[in-house]
Amino acid sequence: MSIANVDEIIIPAGEDYHTHLRHGDLMNMVVPHVRKGGICRALIMPNLTPPITTLEQVVAYKSELEGLDSSVEYLMTLYLHPSLTPEIIAGAKAVGVTGVKSYPRGVTTNSEAGIESYDVYYPIFEAMETAGLILHLHGEIPSNPDNDVCVMNAERSFLSHLEKLHAAFPKLRIILEHSTTKEAVALVKKLGPTVAATITAHHLELTVDDWAGQPHNFCKPVAKYPSDRAALRAVVKEGNPKFFLGSDSAPHDRTKKESCCGSAGVFTTPLLMPYVVTTLLEMGCTSEQIVGFTSANGRAFYDLPDLKQNITLVKESATVPQSYAYGEAGEVVPFKAGQTLAWSLRSQ
Amino acid sequence: MSIANVDEIIIPAGEDYHTHLRHGDLMNMVVPHVRKGGICRALIMPNLTPPITTLEQVVAYKSELEGLDSSVEYLMTLYLHPSLTPEIIAGAKAVGVTGVKSYPRGVTTNSEAGIESYDVYYPIFEAMETAGLILHLHGEIPSNPDNDVCVMNAERSFLSHLEKLHAAFPKLRIILEHSTTKEAVALVKKLGPTVAATITAHHLELTVDDWAGQPHNFCKPVAKYPSDRAALRAVVKEGNPKFFLGSDSAPHDRTKKESCCGSAGVFTTPLLMPYVVTTLLEMGCTSEQIVGFTSANGRAFYDLPDLKQNITLVKESATVPQSYAYGEAGEVVPFKAGQTLAWSLRSQ
Repeated sequence: MSIANVDEIIIPAGEDYHTHLRHGDLMNMVVPHVRKGGICRALIMPNLTPPITTLEQVVAYKSELEGLDSSVEYLMTLYLHPSLTPEIIAGAKAVGVTGVKSYPRGVTTNSEAGIESYDVYYPIFEAMETAGLILHLHGEIPSNPDNDVCVMNAERSFLSHLEKLHAAFPKLRIILEHSTTKEAVALVKKLGPTVAATITAHHLELTVDDWAGQPHNFCKPVAKYPSDRAALRAVVKEGNPKFFLGSDSAPHDRTKKESCCGSAGVFTTPLLMPYVVTTLLEMGCTSEQIVGFTSANGRAFYDLPDLKQNITLVKESATVPQSYAYGEAGEVVPFKAGQTLAWSLRSQ
Repeated sequence: MSIANVDEIIIPAGEDYHTHLRHGDLMNMVVPHVRKGGICRALIMPNLTPPITTLEQVVAYKSELEGLDSSVEYLMTLYLHPSLTPEIIAGAKAVGVTGVKSYPRGVTTNSEAGIESYDVYYPIFEAMETAGLILHLHGEIPSNPDNDVCVMNAERSFLSHLEKLHAAFPKLRIILEHSTTKEAVALVKKLGPTVAATITAHHLELTVDDWAGQPHNFCKPVAKYPSDRAALRAVVKEGNPKFFLGSDSAPHDRTKKESCCGSAGVFTTPLLMPYVVTTLLEMGCTSEQIVGFTSANGRAFYDLPDLKQNITLVKESATVPQSYAYGEAGEVVPFKAGQTLAWSLRSQ
């Protein structure tokens, strides 16, 4: 279907296969915005303080999220950590866990407990394969001047780990999260059907120029070269089913962004579907490509039922708010604050 | 001379062949710090608002600077601009101008009046060759997604312009300012003796990781890969006479750095020689290499007399101030604010 000349599109609600909902005051503000952003199902990252490594924490956190908005389906994750056991993995699915997230140590927010080597986790990966859990990879290696590794090539330098893990566990579903480079796109396309990748709303828009001096566009992995962005756009536009939306929306207080040492993360939750649909329509995507990227591809890879909920986007431009308040004096600046989006969600 | 075990070194005062002294309140604060930073001679950039394009402006600005501190020798520059004429160039040396600065349009602070093509300036370059003025190049081309040009490769993409200019004007002295890449180092080494390069204090220290989310380390050109920094260090350590200090110190108010859209520039003026000497000693440089980089190489390229002023650096660690106040409520955060430098300048 061509949608070049329509001014309203009705599509399935989006599914966000990677988001950070935080805890405390920030969580209380963010969670109700998931649904308002056009999302009916979301994969929740476990990098709280402390990280989520037990099923008791999963149950408690999921219950908190459902208490704030029960209309969203929350898929839960565990943090890959030495305290995980095959027994925990075996019991995880029953409490709503669909996967385990791996953070290389120290590369992003709350990753101090991240992994240094995958080999010690092979018993966990075997248990995950048996239990049907997904391995979510933050695909960067730590910067190291001796090997010329820095934020610009940390993902490319990680890809051999992805290849090795897939070769060792060909049946284990693995997702290279928030992929940002042409090399990552090429490798995920090449590997078997158990390997997929998420792409964020902001990495479809940004390059390194956009976070140079602009902290609200700074995230990990950082946005790369224009040719990398072009590769991300191309694989979405070709409708490749191995690539789907994972926003990596990551709210931080304004004071933690506009500072000497800014936190990594872009906040897209409140307008996630308007951001993505505006971008994909500007790219000339068809409605099939939009639906594939924003819900169908991810749902198929996760092997989940269709929630059969629709949203309506209308061609009415709207200004992105300058910030979202939370707690007593907190404030989070969203992606593209103050800019105009061509498409808006009709209230449901 | 080995200086591995000394705790005091006496060397010629530094010469800073690229600095921004601003105007108004900021200038009033910055200028007295040039000498305090161990510098006796400085090349002053012309990117004020409006840019310095007339000899009257040069005379007035130089007089202001001398009024604030007459102990420093100020070398003045004109801004390469359509209003420049061969007649202005012919009269420039008499009022203290040693060179003309070229800014590609829009790539850094106050470069809106910068050039788009060099060809129209060939009559100016001829006049500069005759008058013995130096051409100072901000060596970046504007970002362009269609050509995959962004801040990370804008300098590398500029280098063909340097080669072309040198081929067209082999007698014209050209300096590739604040060079940041291994490709720039290799090209400047390869080209004839009329081509040199400056290197800043901060580019000897920083990589892309250091300005990711850290606005006080964000400057143009941006710091690049660890291997680029290694190439800058190597060419300084080998004592190559074509490479010398140009700090590109560029003060901005804290509020313009810690903001949604930070200004480009690192402020090193107040502690310039302590920064550089600490770095070079950590790199294992000899005193000959230190003196070459911080004064002798630049002076030889510029063909200027030795001012015969010495400074004393002592191995006494000192903490870099958190900020420098100016005007009524202004504040500039220096490079490495709050960190410790191993070497200090003894007051003169």
